[in-house]
Amino acid sequence: MATRRGKTIITELKPKVIAFASAVGKKEGQGPLSKEFDEIYEDTTMGEDSWEKAESLYLKAAISKALAKSGLSKSDIDIICSGDLLNQCIGSSFGIRDFQLPFCGVYGACSTMALSLCMTSLMIETGAFTNCIAATSSHFCSAEKQFRKPLEYGGQRPPTAQWTVTGSGAVVLSKDGGRGVYIDKIHLGTIQDLGILDSNNMGAAMAPAAKKTIADFLSDTGTKPSDYDAIFTGDLGSVGSELLCELMLKEEGIDLGTVHKDCGLMIYDRETQDVHAGGSGCGCSGSVLCSHILSGMHKGKYRNILFIATGALMSTVSSLQGQTIPGIAHLVNFRKG
Amino acid sequence: MATRRGKTIITELKPKVIAFASAVGKKEGQGPLSKEFDEIYEDTTMGEDSWEKAESLYLKAAISKALAKSGLSKSDIDIICSGDLLNQCIGSSFGIRDFQLPFCGVYGACSTMALSLCMTSLMIETGAFTNCIAATSSHFCSAEKQFRKPLEYGGQRPPTAQWTVTGSGAVVLSKDGGRGVYIDKIHLGTIQDLGILDSNNMGAAMAPAAKKTIADFLSDTGTKPSDYDAIFTGDLGSVGSELLCELMLKEEGIDLGTVHKDCGLMIYDRETQDVHAGGSGCGCSGSVLCSHILSGMHKGKYRNILFIATGALMSTVSSLQGQTIPGIAHLVNFRKG
Repeated sequence: MATRRGKTIITELKPKVIAFASAVGKKEGQGPLSKEFDEIYEDTTMGEDSWEKAESLYLKAAISKALAKSGLSKSDIDIICSGDLLNQCIGSSFGIRDFQLPFCGVYGACSTMALSLCMTSLMIETGAFTNCIAATSSHFCSAEKQFRKPLEYGGQRPPTAQWTVTGSGAVVLSKDGGRGVYIDKIHLGTIQDLGILDSNNMGAAMAPAAKKTIADFLSDTGTKPSDYDAIFTGDLGSVGSELLCELMLKEEGIDLGTVHKDCGLMIYDRETQDVHAGGSGCGCSGSVLCSHILSGMHKGKYRNILFIATGALMSTVSSLQGQTIPGIAHLVNFRKG
Repeated sequence: MATRRGKTIITELKPKVIAFASAVGKKEGQGPLSKEFDEIYEDTTMGEDSWEKAESLYLKAAISKALAKSGLSKSDIDIICSGDLLNQCIGSSFGIRDFQLPFCGVYGACSTMALSLCMTSLMIETGAFTNCIAATSSHFCSAEKQFRKPLEYGGQRPPTAQWTVTGSGAVVLSKDGGRGVYIDKIHLGTIQDLGILDSNNMGAAMAPAAKKTIADFLSDTGTKPSDYDAIFTGDLGSVGSELLCELMLKEEGIDLGTVHKDCGLMIYDRETQDVHAGGSGCGCSGSVLCSHILSGMHKGKYRNILFIATGALMSTVSSLQGQTIPGIAHLVNFRKG
């Protein structure tokens, strides 16, 4: 049986990462993590006639690759758990349709990679699931079109804006097997809403949620940032990352120091790639986890890390109706045995 | 440890229904289940200036009422698991924000009540969750506005169209307690897509998914329809219900007979309430489960039932892009001990 300390769940069966894969677009393939991705598709339309269909194919590619790397066949998989930013999560439903496997749809905005990992970990902990796939995706063009302006409009982006990653990440999580990397603890977040209204400043909306989840987790487990090789947040970008470190220090007296890294600041070269405050989107933390982070763990570069994906739970409708932006952050503690 | 037969999960801890509540709108309050709902709000705006905000308040009302009926305090609850039809599931994120509890967002379109129950059952099965809330909501006006036409346009609806229920249902599921009603088995569905293109005919898109889930479950468990006091589908309406019974008989040789009931056909009086093919929306199966069905179980009218909520996983964008409508159905087997 899994156990609980505060809001933190400590796994008993230690769900194993037996494979993972990332599929990204051209711009991500030109960034600093270029050599770590499994698949780089230069044509971000994926040969399709819509951005939404293209996004589904990135998800399909990441899941297919992870499945191939796991050595399992499709019939060994008990469930796919996935979600994305598109209205009614169509990136996932159309992306996984052809696998013909049980499907659990989740919604956590950009926190989805952590949420799908939390859910599949819990499934394995019940004893009734052997192999699960946790995945997510995003696409710059489908996100811009849906949340902001048509690309053709060429609207200006403020310095706080982030660039939605075109890409997907998928993890095969299993009861047994793998190369020693497992999920030791999970922590499902609580919505934090400090009244941010600017939907071009997601980092500021999500930072308080990341702070709460990290602070609660450290308190529950009696650990401190330096106990971890790295603390990766999902896509706070430069604005949100600075805010997170400030909030942690001022309100919790905790110095994240050099142990904190943000996937949104890792995936692009902000000097040359014109992405303003950094990367964002479910596919940001999804593709960075399923490349640099988990391969770093396999190689022993990281042995004990926190992965905190953050999401902004608003819609264009809620923002136009004057609602503030609720943030959430879910946490996964990966260890290498 | 929970166990598995085929794709069906048999719970070990038997998550208990310790409380449930429904909050519905005026039209639902005028229907045949009128006396069974906890709260009927005649003003479907809930005093808000938008339909989306109103929907969130129905969810909040159902959760608050279920919590009050459970006798637990908010701090006893480990998590709320909820989702809805609105873009980025804002019905849920704004509806649960003020509870300040860990939140797991799920997306299963109109199958959400069964999906949130499946997820919370699995959480309890891990041993690390004591009390969980599973919930969902929908609102006629927010759904029409988002998926079809502005209400003011007064567009005609074809006979196959269904009427989205304004309402919400919430269940408090616990490791211990209650009055003998528990979740014995769950079954997470696989997407079925038979090529339906008409987004005014959800019943036809979802019926094949319901068929697959029910047939797989009966096969996994070696049971037949007459073993159950009732088999409730979510919101197939008249068109989908007829199709389901036909498909079951022709393709599986299984006669659902009189044991099959559909929440979409129970919530309104189709003779007098002008709802065409019946009720739909996450709140349809949510509010019928959390009134008539679960109170029938508490009273011993039903002792062993299947609850299969069905969802159509399309968006307006996918339909406009010529995509077919993928259906999914998740199943929960409630028993009374």
